Amino acid sequence: MESAVSFEKLTEQFRKMPGIGSKTAMRLAFYVLSLSKEEAGELSDVIREASEKIHRCPICCNLTDEDICPVCKNTARKQSVICVVENVEALMAIENTNEYNGTYHVLHGVISPLDDVSPDDIAIKELLSRIEEGGIEEVIMATGSNVEGELTAMYISKLLKPLGVIVSRLAYGLPVGSDLQYADSVTLMRAIEGRKTI
Amino acid sequence: MESAVSFEKLTEQFRKMPGIGSKTAMRLAFYVLSLSKEEAGELSDVIREASEKIHRCPICCNLTDEDICPVCKNTARKQSVICVVENVEALMAIENTNEYNGTYHVLHGVISPLDDVSPDDIAIKELLSRIEEGGIEEVIMATGSNVEGELTAMYISKLLKPLGVIVSRLAYGLPVGSDLQYADSVTLMRAIEGRKTI
Repeated sequence: MESAVSFEKLTEQFRKMPGIGSKTAMRLAFYVLSLSKEEAGELSDVIREASEKIHRCPICCNLTDEDICPVCKNTARKQSVICVVENVEALMAIENTNEYNGTYHVLHGVISPLDDVSPDDIAIKELLSRIEEGGIEEVIMATGSNVEGELTAMYISKLLKPLGVIVSRLAYGLPVGSDLQYADSVTLMRAIEGRKTI
Repeated sequence: MESAVSFEKLTEQFRKMPGIGSKTAMRLAFYVLSLSKEEAGELSDVIREASEKIHRCPICCNLTDEDICPVCKNTARKQSVICVVENVEALMAIENTNEYNGTYHVLHGVISPLDDVSPDDIAIKELLSRIEEGGIEEVIMATGSNVEGELTAMYISKLLKPLGVIVSRLAYGLPVGSDLQYADSVTLMRAIEGRKTI
């Protein structure tokens, strides 16, 4: 099919996006063409603006378009607790619980020797300098419960212990609403180990 | 979650796209932020360019970024046959068979009283004026085999018959590679009606 060059380019751009195959890319390209020139211009501007304006918060490495991110700026939050997360998605997930009232530190990745990601490639030094500045009592390691997440949590906790802060880890156990028969044995073992009196 | 305004706007733009839910919209927004400024600028430019450059071919209403679309421009194609399709996706599907060597006419929709789409809302008058100019021998109605597609094919064929052109319709029958037991009875009935000696 000989189709328009601009259309090919547009489809190609969508095809690069995560989880977008060639059929969906074409559907999205047709969507763009169905927009009015103003609407397409707005989409174009919003993409450029987001890419130009959004940067890492100089304190916690969260993404923001202001000087300092809204979490760090909020003085009502407990400044002495830092929750360390892998990425902004994880931060948002914790924020959505409306339970946590401390600050964050976004690593932007996890240590993964297989993917050639070393401790220097993620925002660990920024975390260390925050703690060296003082005033931090607890660091909650909220990386994922997979191998890389565990490795990263272990690595960081070893660095932090000499600095005299409490390092904690999210609890392991059964997901709420789950049936015991479907839980894997490692999760079940951790749930038994971590049992609490009621 | 208090997130960056530009990020919210970006997610909102992706959420408007067909088949994109809020989770995917956020994933795509994070993808944009993971791009370098140059890459994001390119994405932004390609969207704007496609929207500004791509227009309907003045002959067949196919989408193109040139004066006349590549199909109409190709003089090796049989100019006396027009294949009428609902949209550019259908045109592309037929082109991908590499079997058809005539021209097209893209209606950009089908007649649908339920969705309030009347014959005037789709590119029927453009088709009529092409035929009135002369030189057309056959019009193949390649709209879908659903109610709206059938209705549109019937409507157009009634308009065209007085003009002295042959109007044909795509064959109905079993999809290639299908099992008889899974075919619906209407399709099977049409397949029996349309049987051919071998």
